Amino acid sequence: MIVNTASIEKFCQDLFEEKLMPPVWLKCGEVHFVDQRRLPHAYVIHSTKSAHDIGDAISAMIIRGSGALGISAAYGMLLAYANAQSIGDVRHTAERLASTRPMAKNLVETTQRLLTAADAKDVNGRDFSNAVLDILIEQLEMERSIGRFGNPLIRDGAQILTHCHSGALAGSGYGGRAISSIRCAHESGKKVFVYISETRPYFQGSRITAFELDKLHIPYSIISDGMSGQLMQEDRIDCVIVGSDRVMQNGDLFNKAGTYMHALAAHANDVPFYVGTSAHTIDLVTDPTSVKPEVRPAGELIMVNGVKMAPDHADALYISFDRTPARLINAYITEKGIIQPPYDTVLRRVFGSNIS
Amino acid sequence: MIVNTASIEKFCQDLFEEKLMPPVWLKCGEVHFVDQRRLPHAYVIHSTKSAHDIGDAISAMIIRGSGALGISAAYGMLLAYANAQSIGDVRHTAERLASTRPMAKNLVETTQRLLTAADAKDVNGRDFSNAVLDILIEQLEMERSIGRFGNPLIRDGAQILTHCHSGALAGSGYGGRAISSIRCAHESGKKVFVYISETRPYFQGSRITAFELDKLHIPYSIISDGMSGQLMQEDRIDCVIVGSDRVMQNGDLFNKAGTYMHALAAHANDVPFYVGTSAHTIDLVTDPTSVKPEVRPAGELIMVNGVKMAPDHADALYISFDRTPARLINAYITEKGIIQPPYDTVLRRVFGSNIS
Repeated sequence: MIVNTASIEKFCQDLFEEKLMPPVWLKCGEVHFVDQRRLPHAYVIHSTKSAHDIGDAISAMIIRGSGALGISAAYGMLLAYANAQSIGDVRHTAERLASTRPMAKNLVETTQRLLTAADAKDVNGRDFSNAVLDILIEQLEMERSIGRFGNPLIRDGAQILTHCHSGALAGSGYGGRAISSIRCAHESGKKVFVYISETRPYFQGSRITAFELDKLHIPYSIISDGMSGQLMQEDRIDCVIVGSDRVMQNGDLFNKAGTYMHALAAHANDVPFYVGTSAHTIDLVTDPTSVKPEVRPAGELIMVNGVKMAPDHADALYISFDRTPARLINAYITEKGIIQPPYDTVLRRVFGSNIS
Repeated sequence: MIVNTASIEKFCQDLFEEKLMPPVWLKCGEVHFVDQRRLPHAYVIHSTKSAHDIGDAISAMIIRGSGALGISAAYGMLLAYANAQSIGDVRHTAERLASTRPMAKNLVETTQRLLTAADAKDVNGRDFSNAVLDILIEQLEMERSIGRFGNPLIRDGAQILTHCHSGALAGSGYGGRAISSIRCAHESGKKVFVYISETRPYFQGSRITAFELDKLHIPYSIISDGMSGQLMQEDRIDCVIVGSDRVMQNGDLFNKAGTYMHALAAHANDVPFYVGTSAHTIDLVTDPTSVKPEVRPAGELIMVNGVKMAPDHADALYISFDRTPARLINAYITEKGIIQPPYDTVLRRVFGSNIS
């Protein structure tokens, strides 16, 4: 089917002119994406006209991060629509994209929304590409809004701890759920300094967050995950800002393993602990007590750069997420403003309309 | 000078017959030691008749761990005495050994004690070798005592968290300050299971503690340093047992970075937090507020197996120890028994005679 992608290409071009760092973009009719596995030492860009390749890139963790998954799915649907002989082809791609990372709420929502658009009566190529563009604009605006609301929480001269990677390349180019606030503070003229928790076992902090802060000229220092508490005891951290994998209706947070221990250290040392989140990751439906963090293969923990850091046949356990209880979280920074306790009522009041 | 080492060699032979794992021992007139840098994939033993080589091995971290440093210094002094033309030669070796790791209280104490023995009137080779043997026996008895006192704290079926490495190879062959209690519980017939915190950046937990538990047939699972809190929230840890680099008069603990965060997680989840220690590491003299944890080169953190896990020119900070406040420590397990709060008075009462 014929789609007009000029407005999307213009949108993407503007991203680069505004010095944003999108994980995925459209140029000359091809979808381009950064290979996040290769960072920081190589900045490799792949390009494709096939929605199938987008699905493969998501499966292989070449593209990762909740926001990035959402826009990648939108681009995948755009390619599927352009190449489709029938709506059945588009539906097939939607199903495949949604299944690449079964836990990602964003993938399901985006593909479903665009499938509905493609399936609507009297839809034409322009309508469909506008539906894709809407998603791209919304995601970017969401990050900018998080940044604007988070900025006032950061004082001039602040030293901020972050964990894992929740930045531009995990979002749609501005700063994801965590770095957006730090970026906005920096761009508003405040001096900020970031301590990056390296984030075992994948080193997303030292590899990707550090890479982004380099590009933004925001000074930082990488620490091991077990060091934040000592820094807080030495009064060297003003606040903690992390992203979110899933926020429950009672305000509990599921995020990359290690988050809970940073939150405990912050609480013990009177350091505010903030979490960037958005409607896409707030889950007002699931029973919070029913969620079990994902257990991943032990080899991902004990093999480091091809070397086994343990005896042969050693047993290991890799729980990739942890639960940070609501009581340890001073505020959620969202695209609709700062959310403070009591989370059970406020989250529902502000985000309740998202329940399907 | 002529020394009779038969009794020391017999003592060492007994260690192996009792299935202990000494880091250093005497056999056929030569001092043998395990290369701890190569564990767990290679079990390399070096041997020497030169006290100078012992000093080099300590400097190069081939031998490490407070207890192991003490007995290595004793063996170094034995070689120095055997090869010496005069007491001046022995004094020279003592000074060098004591300076290899300036923070190790044990090295200074051991070399000073043996220098005094060597310098005594009417001393002969048998007297001197007995003085060395006394030190070896004391260190081993200290570990066994810690084990006996710690054992009752561990229930049958316990799941225990430990951090870093405080075991046989860091001690004199039984189980150092942390593993001794676990070993004693295991040998008394209790079922125990150990979660080993890998301990970034050197992986002492996943490399060395796991190696020792393998040898002891104690089941374990390696976790990342940021995962212990989640395990405690899931009720999967009964108690924490760690070693100690330095215990202050007010009960504060300095130990490998990450210890404080395990202690915070234990406190928040009502999990008892125990610390193995002994007279050698209890410091009743220094003002607790004056101690600053050692900062080591950033490269040790971000270079992993020869690969830089960060952008070029990335800044990093590696604080190698942290302070765990006394309020988070349920008990110290020592060679003189279990020490409970108030630490300031009890530590002084039990260990006060060690003040020089």
